[in-house]
Amino acid sequence: MKNLVSMKELSTDQILSILNQTKAFHDGTSSTLRNNYMVSNLFFEPSTRTKMSFEMAERKLNLEVLPFDAGFSSTLKGETLYDTVKVLESIGLDVLVIRHEQNNYFEELVGKVKPVIINGGDGTGNHPTQSLLDIYTIWQEFGTLQNKVITIVGDISHSRVARSNADALTRLGAQVRFVCPPEWQGEFEAFNNFDEVIEDSDVLMMLRVQHERHDGKTIFSKEQYHQAYGLTLEREKKMNKSAIIMHPAPFNRDVEIATELVECNRSRIFKQMENGVFVRMAVIEMILKGRE
Amino acid sequence: MKNLVSMKELSTDQILSILNQTKAFHDGTSSTLRNNYMVSNLFFEPSTRTKMSFEMAERKLNLEVLPFDAGFSSTLKGETLYDTVKVLESIGLDVLVIRHEQNNYFEELVGKVKPVIINGGDGTGNHPTQSLLDIYTIWQEFGTLQNKVITIVGDISHSRVARSNADALTRLGAQVRFVCPPEWQGEFEAFNNFDEVIEDSDVLMMLRVQHERHDGKTIFSKEQYHQAYGLTLEREKKMNKSAIIMHPAPFNRDVEIATELVECNRSRIFKQMENGVFVRMAVIEMILKGRE
Amino acid sequence: MKNLVSMKELSTDQILSILNQTKAFHDGTSSTLRNNYMVSNLFFEPSTRTKMSFEMAERKLNLEVLPFDAGFSSTLKGETLYDTVKVLESIGLDVLVIRHEQNNYFEELVGKVKPVIINGGDGTGNHPTQSLLDIYTIWQEFGTLQNKVITIVGDISHSRVARSNADALTRLGAQVRFVCPPEWQGEFEAFNNFDEVIEDSDVLMMLRVQHERHDGKTIFSKEQYHQAYGLTLEREKKMNKSAIIMHPAPFNRDVEIATELVECNRSRIFKQMENGVFVRMAVIEMILKGRE
Repeated sequence: MKNLVSMKELSTDQILSILNQTKAFHDGTSSTLRNNYMVSNLFFEPSTRTKMSFEMAERKLNLEVLPFDAGFSSTLKGETLYDTVKVLESIGLDVLVIRHEQNNYFEELVGKVKPVIINGGDGTGNHPTQSLLDIYTIWQEFGTLQNKVITIVGDISHSRVARSNADALTRLGAQVRFVCPPEWQGEFEAFNNFDEVIEDSDVLMMLRVQHERHDGKTIFSKEQYHQAYGLTLEREKKMNKSAIIMHPAPFNRDVEIATELVECNRSRIFKQMENGVFVRMAVIEMILKGRE
Repeated sequence: MKNLVSMKELSTDQILSILNQTKAFHDGTSSTLRNNYMVSNLFFEPSTRTKMSFEMAERKLNLEVLPFDAGFSSTLKGETLYDTVKVLESIGLDVLVIRHEQNNYFEELVGKVKPVIINGGDGTGNHPTQSLLDIYTIWQEFGTLQNKVITIVGDISHSRVARSNADALTRLGAQVRFVCPPEWQGEFEAFNNFDEVIEDSDVLMMLRVQHERHDGKTIFSKEQYHQAYGLTLEREKKMNKSAIIMHPAPFNRDVEIATELVECNRSRIFKQMENGVFVRMAVIEMILKGRE
Repeated sequence: MKNLVSMKELSTDQILSILNQTKAFHDGTSSTLRNNYMVSNLFFEPSTRTKMSFEMAERKLNLEVLPFDAGFSSTLKGETLYDTVKVLESIGLDVLVIRHEQNNYFEELVGKVKPVIINGGDGTGNHPTQSLLDIYTIWQEFGTLQNKVITIVGDISHSRVARSNADALTRLGAQVRFVCPPEWQGEFEAFNNFDEVIEDSDVLMMLRVQHERHDGKTIFSKEQYHQAYGLTLEREKKMNKSAIIMHPAPFNRDVEIATELVECNRSRIFKQMENGVFVRMAVIEMILKGRE
C-alpha cells in the first residue's frame, strides 16, 4: 500500500491489517514512525469532520501539519492540481490528503509524484477512509463482517459511501442491500420499500440526502422523505435486538433519521467519527512505514 | 468553573483567583497541565485579535490547536451548532472556544457535551475573557478595583463589553458609569454629556462604534461622533493625573479616540491585548486543572 | 539585517552570506536558534507556494506558526495594517511575513514595530525572498554569478521578480537582459525579439503572464504570446548546452513555457521551489540570530 485512493486496490488481507492496526491505536498503542513527516490536507470541497478527523490523526502520529487554504490558493490563478501537488512535493510535503470534486482526480497524480496521496473523497466516486471506518465500526460491534446483513438506505447514486462500501463489505463476507427511491437507484439493484428489510438487518446504514447535489430537482419534501425512507421511531422499534444504526454524517435531523434516534442506544453515529481518527492513523502509519 | 460562558456565573472570589493566576503567567510562571490537550477555536464571526490571542494562549499552555474554518465547514450544509460540537467531541477535542452571532448559543451546549466551552463572544451578549482582561488591566494599574470610577463611553446597546463588564466591575467595588447618545442607551442608565464625567474618572473605557451592526442607520458622521463622544486631545487634557484610557479594539482612529492618543502615556489599549493572552491562559488552565 | 523588505537594502556581502547559510541548511545543518519564536504569515493576496514555503521554513526552524486568516480578519472592519501589526506585536508575535497588494506597505511598519518584518511581496514592488531563491538557484548551478548572462522574459512591468532581481543580479556580476513586448516594457530597456538572445544566455528566466493584473486588456491570445515570447520546443533546442530554464511560478503551460519543457532536464522550476524553503530558513535564522 503506497497510497490510498480507493477501496478497489485494497486486498481483503490489507483491510484486515488496517482493522487490526486501528484497534491497536484505539487501545492506546503509540505510533512508531521514525521521521518527522510533513503533511497537508488539500480540501477543495467543504468538510468539517473529515478534514478535522485527518488533522487529529496526523497530530496523534506526531506529523507536522501545514495548513492549505484551497479558497485562497494558486489554483485560483488557474494552476492544475498536478502542478499544485508538484509544488508541494518540491516544498517538502511527505503526505497529501486530498478532497476534490472531480471523480478520479488522483489518476493524474499516483505514480507521478513523490508524496503519499490519500483520497479524502473524489466527487461522487470514492471515500476509502470513510468506508474503512464504517467497516471498522461494524467489526468492532460484531467481531466479524461474515454473514452480517447490512442495509444501505438513501441517496445511493450521489453517495461516495455506497460505492466504496458495497464491494468491500461483500468481499469481507457481509450481505449488502440497498434501499432507495427508484429515481436515485442509478446502476444499483435496490429495494424501494424500506419496511420490508428492517427486521433482518444487522446494520441500517442511513445515507445523507445530498440536497446540494440535486440542483433544486427535489422529488420529495423533507417530511415525505422521512416517512418513506427515513429512520422513524416506528421503524427503529422493528429493528432486531442487536442491530445498530450508522450514518456517515452530516445528518439531516428528521429527514434521514428522527432527531430522537441520533443519540439512542443503537446509534453508532458519533462512534463512527471517533473511530475515523484511529482508522486514519492506521492508514497513514502503515503507508509511511511501508516507505521507510 | 467547568466552562466559561458569561461573567454572571463567576463569583467574586473566582474572578480574584483568575486575576492572580493571570499575574502568575504574566510574571513568567509555566503551565503545569498534565495532559496533551486538544483545542479548536470556532469563530463564526470575524476576529483577528480575539482568535489569535486565544491561539497564543493555547500555544503557551502547550495545547495542540486544530484549525477550524467556519467559512468552509459543514455548518454550510445546515448542520446545527450542537451537532458540529458533538462531532468535534467525538473526534477528540478537549476544549472549544466559540464565537457565534447568536446570543446565548452556549445554552444548547453546556452540560450536554464533554469538551470545555469557552465563550469568545455571543452576539450582543457576553464576552467574558474581554471583561476579565479589562478587569485585570485596571487591577494591574491600581492594585484594586475598590472605589475606582470607571466611565464606559459609546455604543452601549451593541456592545458585548459593556454588558459583561458592568456587573462584574460593580461587584469588585468599582463605580461604573455609562456615557452615550440617548439613541444608543438601550436598557442602561447613562450620561449623555461626556464632558461632565471626565475629570473624576479613573478609567475612560471607550467602546468601538459598531458600524457593521447599525445597518446604515447612522445618526452621526464620524466627525460629529468624535466631537460629541470621542476622546479628543482637549478631553484628554482634562483627565486626572493617574487616569488611564482603555478600548477593546479594533478602534476607529479619530472616531472613538484621536489618533494621537492611541499610543499616548495614558493609553492601555495595546497593554490590554498583551494582558488578554495571560488572562486566557489563566482561564483555560484553571478549567482544565479543575477537570483533571 | 533587522528586517527584509527589499533587495536594495542588502549589501553584496549580505547576499553572499545568505547564499552560504542557505547551502548549509540545504546540506542538512540544523537551526541553532535559542528561543521559542512565534511567527505569523499575513497574506492579504492569494499564494500557495510562497505562503507554504515560508510555513515549511518556519516549521524546520522550530518556530511556532500562528495562523492568520486575512479573509476573516479585523482589517475587514477597517483596521489599518499598522494597527493590525501592533495588535500582533502586543499578542507576542516575534516575526511577521507579510504579502500585501500595496507597494511599499512596509514603510509604515519598519522601525515602528517590534516584530521582524519579512516582505513576502508588495504589489508590483519587491519580493526579496523570491529574488534570493532565484540567485541561489543560479549560484548552485554555476558556482558563481560572475559574467553569467541572464535573460528575463515576459511581463516585466507587472513583475515583482524582475524589479527585485535586476539590480541584485547585476551587483553580483551577472549580465541581465530583458525581453518583452514593447507594450509591457515599462521603464526598462528591453529586447523585443526573443530569438536573438537565446543562444548566448546561461539562464532563461521566464516570467508569469499576470492575467489577473491586466484587467482584460489583453494584447495577445495565449497562442500568440507563446509563439512570440514563450519558451517553445524550437527555442529550447537553440539554448546553449549548459543553459537552464527558470520560472517563479505559478506558470501557465503552453503560454510562457511549452508543457513538455516544464520538467525537462534544463528546467529548474521545481528546484527553485525546493530552494525557496532553505533560502527562507536562512533569512529568518540570520535576522533572529542578529537580534538575540
